[in-house]
Amino acid sequence: MNFKIPFAGRQHEYSDEEIEVVVNAMKFSVPLTQGSNLKLFQNEFCDYVNCRHAFGVSNATAALEMAAQLLLINEGDEVIIPSHTYTSSAYPFLKQGAKIVWADIDLQTRVVNAETIKKCITKNTKAIVVVHLYGFGADMEEILDLATENDLILIEDVAQALGGELNSKKLGTFGHLGVFSFHSHKNISTLGEGGMLITDDENFAKVIPLLRHNGHCDFEFSRDQYWLPAMGNVDMPTLHNSYLWPNNYCLGEVECALGTKMLQRIDAINSEKRRRAIHFINELSNYPELQFHVEDSPRHAYHLLVAMVTDIDRDDFIKSMSNDYGIQCVVQYYPLDRYDLYKKADQGKSNCPKTDLFFDNMVSFPFQHSLAMAELDYILEATKKVVEKLR
Amino acid sequence: MNFKIPFAGRQHEYSDEEIEVVVNAMKFSVPLTQGSNLKLFQNEFCDYVNCRHAFGVSNATAALEMAAQLLLINEGDEVIIPSHTYTSSAYPFLKQGAKIVWADIDLQTRVVNAETIKKCITKNTKAIVVVHLYGFGADMEEILDLATENDLILIEDVAQALGGELNSKKLGTFGHLGVFSFHSHKNISTLGEGGMLITDDENFAKVIPLLRHNGHCDFEFSRDQYWLPAMGNVDMPTLHNSYLWPNNYCLGEVECALGTKMLQRIDAINSEKRRRAIHFINELSNYPELQFHVEDSPRHAYHLLVAMVTDIDRDDFIKSMSNDYGIQCVVQYYPLDRYDLYKKADQGKSNCPKTDLFFDNMVSFPFQHSLAMAELDYILEATKKVVEKLR
Repeated sequence: MNFKIPFAGRQHEYSDEEIEVVVNAMKFSVPLTQGSNLKLFQNEFCDYVNCRHAFGVSNATAALEMAAQLLLINEGDEVIIPSHTYTSSAYPFLKQGAKIVWADIDLQTRVVNAETIKKCITKNTKAIVVVHLYGFGADMEEILDLATENDLILIEDVAQALGGELNSKKLGTFGHLGVFSFHSHKNISTLGEGGMLITDDENFAKVIPLLRHNGHCDFEFSRDQYWLPAMGNVDMPTLHNSYLWPNNYCLGEVECALGTKMLQRIDAINSEKRRRAIHFINELSNYPELQFHVEDSPRHAYHLLVAMVTDIDRDDFIKSMSNDYGIQCVVQYYPLDRYDLYKKADQGKSNCPKTDLFFDNMVSFPFQHSLAMAELDYILEATKKVVEKLR
Repeated sequence: MNFKIPFAGRQHEYSDEEIEVVVNAMKFSVPLTQGSNLKLFQNEFCDYVNCRHAFGVSNATAALEMAAQLLLINEGDEVIIPSHTYTSSAYPFLKQGAKIVWADIDLQTRVVNAETIKKCITKNTKAIVVVHLYGFGADMEEILDLATENDLILIEDVAQALGGELNSKKLGTFGHLGVFSFHSHKNISTLGEGGMLITDDENFAKVIPLLRHNGHCDFEFSRDQYWLPAMGNVDMPTLHNSYLWPNNYCLGEVECALGTKMLQRIDAINSEKRRRAIHFINELSNYPELQFHVEDSPRHAYHLLVAMVTDIDRDDFIKSMSNDYGIQCVVQYYPLDRYDLYKKADQGKSNCPKTDLFFDNMVSFPFQHSLAMAELDYILEATKKVVEKLR
C-alpha cells in the first residue's frame, strides 16, 4: 500500500554543509578508513557527551556485540534486559552464552526502572542493559546505585537518545559502557549505518580497538625498521587474562567526517523534535484515549512519538489512520520474548505484564525530523477525527 | 617518517560522476539503509560476475564471518587456508571452532594451488579457502575438482581480485561462496568500507539475509493488517536444521549507490593497473634481482605489485628506497602462523616453506591507481639505482 505519510524511512535531510563535508572527505581523505576523521569524530564525541573514550563502529549492534564480549560471560551468567526494545539490545548477549532475564517497563515512561530491574537480580546476574527507548532517559542514578551495590556491569543502550541528559549529565555516561546509533532512522545518521561505543574504563578502552579492527595492534617491542618483522602485529584481544575474538566493525572516514559535522546539529534536532512532540501532545489534551509520555526537558529526545490507546480499539485506530488518511502508524517494540528467535533460544518466557499491556495497545506515529509542519498538522487533524469517530 | 611516496593509503580518486551519485543518494535515498540501492547494487553485481545471489555487507570480513557460519563447523573439523593472506581470511573460521590447516603457496604465482591444497586434505577437512592474493586468480578449475572429489565446501576470497577472470569466468564464481571487498585500499571502494558475499547455492542464499540483518524476516503466515502481530518477525537463521546466530552486517544505501556506479569503472581500473604493472616489470627485465609474477591477461588484476628479492639483501633494498628516495615499500602478507593471535589460538605452526621463503624476501611497491605516471617512473628509476647500488 502506498501511504501519503509513511512511517519514517529516514529521519532527516542533510544540509548543504553536511553534503559538502562528505564531498570533501571523498576527495581528500587518505586513507578512506581508520584515519584522522575517525580520531576527530571520536574526540568530538567524547567532548560532546563528556566521556574518556569513544570508538566509532559500523553500527550500534557492533557496539553491543563488543559490550557483550567485554562481560566475559560464563555459563549460567544472567543479563537483565528490557523485553521492550529492538532485538540488537539483546541477542549479542545470548551469542556470548548469557541467559537473559527480561525486565519490565514502567507504564508511564515506557522504559525500565530500578524497581523493575531489582526484581530480576539473582546471584547469577552479571550485567544490566538499560535502553533509553523512544529517546527518554531511564532513572540512571538509582539504577547505577543498584548496579554498584550488586557489583554488576551497567550498559546503556542510547541508540535512540543521543544528546539526552539526566540532571545535566549526558545519557550513556552513567554506565560502564554506552552504545549509540547513527542508523538511517536515528536523530543523526552517518549515511545510514554507524555507531559508537563509549567507556571510561581503561581496561575496556585498551581492548576495544583490537576487538573492532581484526586484532590489529603494534608490536610490543621497539623496531628499528618499520617493516620488520612485519608492518604490524595481530594479537588476541585480551581482558583480565581472557581471550576474546576480534571482529571487523570499522566505520569509514567519510561517514566519520559526516558524523563529526552532524554533532553540531544534534541539539537543534532534538530540541525541535521535543517542541513538536509537546505541541502534538498538547493539541490532543482533550483526547485522553491517547496517553503520551510528557517530558518537556532534555531528558527526552523524542526520537519517536508513541501513545498508549485506551477506551477505543487500537487496531481500529491504526486501520482508520491508514485506510482513511493514508498515514502509516506502526507498533513497536514487539516484546522480544514473542519473536521466534528468542523462543528458539529458550528465552520465550517473560514476566513483563506492563510491557505486554503497553505493546498490545500502543501506536507509534510518523515523526521523522524531515516531516513538514503541514504534514504533522495533517497527522494531528486525522488523529482527532479518527478518535472522535471511534468514541 | 614522512614519505615522498607513501604506500597506498587509498587506492583511487573518485570521479565527479561518482561524487554526484553520492550527493544524490544523500538527498533522495529513503531509507538510508536496506533499500533499493542495495537491491540494485546486488543485481548489478550478479550481472557483472555472473552469479545467482549477491549480498552487500559492511566489509569483506563480515562476508567471511558469514561464510564460516555457513560451514556448520563441528568439533575437529578442519579448514584449509593459505597462511600467506590477510588475517580476515582465517580468523572467522577459528571463531566457529574450526582447526586451520595452513596451505603453502606456489613460489611463482604466490597463491595456493591444487597441489599444495591436496597435501592438507584429511578425513576431517570440511572446507577450502582460496585467496586470489595480489589480484591473481588461483587454479580454480583444478581446485574445484579437488573439492568436489572430497566433498568439501569451496570458498573464494576475492577481496583483491574483483573483475579477474579465469578462462572467461569471473573469479568468485567457481566456489560455493565468493567474498569481495570494497575497502579503502581495493580497486573500487564504497567510501572506505564495504563487501559482498555471493553464492549460487539456494540454501545459503535463503539464510544469508537473516545472518546479515539481525534475523529480520517476514512472518510465515499471511497478515491482513500490516502491524499485527508486529511489523515483522525476527527468527533464528537456520541451515540444515542448525541454528546460526544473526549479525548486523548491513551496508548503507549511499555506499551501495556508489558501488553500483563504480562497477562501471572496475574493468578500466584493472586494465590500467595491469598495463602499468607489465610496463614496470618489463622496464626491470635487466634486474633479475627482482622476480615479478608476469601475467598479462584478465587473470591478474594487479591489485598490488610485488617482487621477490634475490641476490641482494631485501631489507637493504627497502631501507635504501625509504631513506634515499622517500619511497615507502612494505612487506606483506606476514604468514599468519607468525602472528601472536594465531600462536595463542594454537595455530602457530605451519609447513609452508615457500610462503616463508617468499615473505622473508618479498617487497611490495606503492601501486595505488591514483599514482601519477611521473610517480611510477620515479619509483622505477629509484628501484634501478638501488638495485645497482646493492649489486
